[in-house]
Amino acid sequence: MFIESPRYTERFGSIRMNHVQRVVALDSGRKSELPLHGAMGVMKIEEETIKHFEDRMAIVIPVKDEKLKLIEGVISGVPHDCLVIVVSNSQIEKVDRFRMEGDALNQLCRFTLRQALIAHQKDPAIAEAAIEAGYNGLLGEDGLVRNGKSEAMIIGLLMAKASGKEYVGFIDADNYFPGAVLEYVRNYAAGFSLAQSSYSMVRILWLYKPKISGGVYFKKWGRVSETTNKHLNHLISSKIGFETEVVKTGNAGEHAMSMKLAEIVPYASGYAVEPQELISIFENFGGILSSRERKVMEQGVDIFQIETRNPHLHEEKGEEHLDEMLLSAMSTIYHSPLCGEEVKEATLTELVNRGILKEGEEPPLVHINAPLKEVDTKKFIKAIQDDFHRYQVLP
Amino acid sequence: MFIESPRYTERFGSIRMNHVQRVVALDSGRKSELPLHGAMGVMKIEEETIKHFEDRMAIVIPVKDEKLKLIEGVISGVPHDCLVIVVSNSQIEKVDRFRMEGDALNQLCRFTLRQALIAHQKDPAIAEAAIEAGYNGLLGEDGLVRNGKSEAMIIGLLMAKASGKEYVGFIDADNYFPGAVLEYVRNYAAGFSLAQSSYSMVRILWLYKPKISGGVYFKKWGRVSETTNKHLNHLISSKIGFETEVVKTGNAGEHAMSMKLAEIVPYASGYAVEPQELISIFENFGGILSSRERKVMEQGVDIFQIETRNPHLHEEKGEEHLDEMLLSAMSTIYHSPLCGEEVKEATLTELVNRGILKEGEEPPLVHINAPLKEVDTKKFIKAIQDDFHRYQVLP
Repeated sequence: MFIESPRYTERFGSIRMNHVQRVVALDSGRKSELPLHGAMGVMKIEEETIKHFEDRMAIVIPVKDEKLKLIEGVISGVPHDCLVIVVSNSQIEKVDRFRMEGDALNQLCRFTLRQALIAHQKDPAIAEAAIEAGYNGLLGEDGLVRNGKSEAMIIGLLMAKASGKEYVGFIDADNYFPGAVLEYVRNYAAGFSLAQSSYSMVRILWLYKPKISGGVYFKKWGRVSETTNKHLNHLISSKIGFETEVVKTGNAGEHAMSMKLAEIVPYASGYAVEPQELISIFENFGGILSSRERKVMEQGVDIFQIETRNPHLHEEKGEEHLDEMLLSAMSTIYHSPLCGEEVKEATLTELVNRGILKEGEEPPLVHINAPLKEVDTKKFIKAIQDDFHRYQVLP
Repeated sequence: MFIESPRYTERFGSIRMNHVQRVVALDSGRKSELPLHGAMGVMKIEEETIKHFEDRMAIVIPVKDEKLKLIEGVISGVPHDCLVIVVSNSQIEKVDRFRMEGDALNQLCRFTLRQALIAHQKDPAIAEAAIEAGYNGLLGEDGLVRNGKSEAMIIGLLMAKASGKEYVGFIDADNYFPGAVLEYVRNYAAGFSLAQSSYSMVRILWLYKPKISGGVYFKKWGRVSETTNKHLNHLISSKIGFETEVVKTGNAGEHAMSMKLAEIVPYASGYAVEPQELISIFENFGGILSSRERKVMEQGVDIFQIETRNPHLHEEKGEEHLDEMLLSAMSTIYHSPLCGEEVKEATLTELVNRGILKEGEEPPLVHINAPLKEVDTKKFIKAIQDDFHRYQVLP
């Protein structure tokens, strides 16, 4: 694989946030030699290197009633050496879709001699393990894990930790192209290979997100992404005193972290999860507010933003959730202790102008799940490991 | 990569035509061990093996005014070790699109230190080389190479031969997904690795070809493909006396051949090129008509049909050409010396029922370009090699 070198890096406190790096070609072959390449701004990531990180990586796929054919396609695109972890919140009553997902996963694993894990978000055993670990914030009023993608991500993270993985990547289950999934995971590996710190994050920027209506239009920016990035950059600019446009992946659902970083980041509920991760990193390690994590401050945090070679074509879920997405993202900015008056005003104006809030209203606080380091993950893992076989899909 | 084993093979004369094999997963990692796998019907194709064949393969991309972004994407998906050969018939006057294509190719090659070749179909030097080689059938009335994809394929083949490549694959330039292109080439390599004979062919069957109109519909079969396959199978069944449905890739634009096979197959003009390849192989090596190629009869011909994991999403070119495609395909069947009365009737009925021919009409003969072995390829190659630098894109 050929990827642009990380030429521009913004430094805030101990964060090294890299500008977008484009994937130049999907494969780099055996024969290519790149003596002058550093100078040309393009790097070769060796196959060896990619496989090294894939072997240490779990891929968590949150699922909620997506079509089976899509889920199968996504899994068939995840590199073999990665551990696949499906966390499903699909319906069980009426039609037991969860069981169908398990069957499909089982079949794929059998044919490709691969192990995987699958868990249901509403499994009472997982809720019990959460209570055991003091992770009560994860639970809803019914005593089970709350609905939502970030809660699925947390379950996936804990399972990845229980399996001894050092990296964890998230992939949405509604992707039409297995080949694009393959690329995302390889991009994660490429990013991790460039990190100096063991606290690292890779966020995916789609080359295009084609819109389908009558024909295909290769849209570059979603309305929500563009606005989220603008205000995240505003927040950062206001703190460092130099205007920056470095953030291009504020809403990146496709992203990955080293387990060490994943353990110290909080996970906001709903659509706020991705921007909140960035904001929490800025708050904790940006050098403005004080940090209790001396180790991290010493090593630093590396953030990579990688632009794919493939477009992103996924199942359209309608436009209704766009306002909610934007409100969540603006809320994470608005309520951050980093956020000064000017940035607050700008986010309010944005929301009022778009008719999402009325004059005088504030964006509601988003529920935030504590970082794993604040709960007793050992107890959680012990509790689920006792019947880990229930989650295991063996070939 | 994991692929279904070739479980069912139809044998006609010295042809081994394999039923469709599905790609099960895009990557097979380092760690997978498959002790029982033969028995389970799925094989692992090692990365080593794939790279071995990629290194010996040229990928020919016929281009005709496709959008530059698409061409760039396609090239960025071709594995690095393959030699890329672009044969363009794009406009030169008004806007010099050919020059833009060359510039884009040059930029990509520079960034990824890769070599490539690019030629224009209407280059007088190529027409002169064709005359030198006694390949006058390749030329039109204007004394230049005729328009059409098969003529571009032939130029690509000759350039691949001049470059010493042992395999040649064709990829259309209008594909939206670089990751799908990557898969096609890897599927070619996988197919070749399974061949017993040095005369081998790999034809791609798309998992789905999504139709876009208001939403996405994952269509499996195009109308033309389905009909072409039906009549090709009818032709074969009528000769072997057992009904077969083995042919699923009659119109496969994405296909590849060993150079040895590519040299002895004729190339029909226009949309007839892909079905005609199969029919010529049936005619020459199917054991019904006599063959002058003793070597091939001894070794046999291996044909693989591989179903991709990725769907195929390409630029829609409208529906007008569908009738023409079907007429060309039916014509190759109708005029084959293998074709008996019953099969002839069936193709005529098909064309009349669809309103493509009137009662009593026959499908017109399609122009067929002679196989390379019938022309003096050495002279052709010598003629173009003298100024080969004109076609070379160096990093």
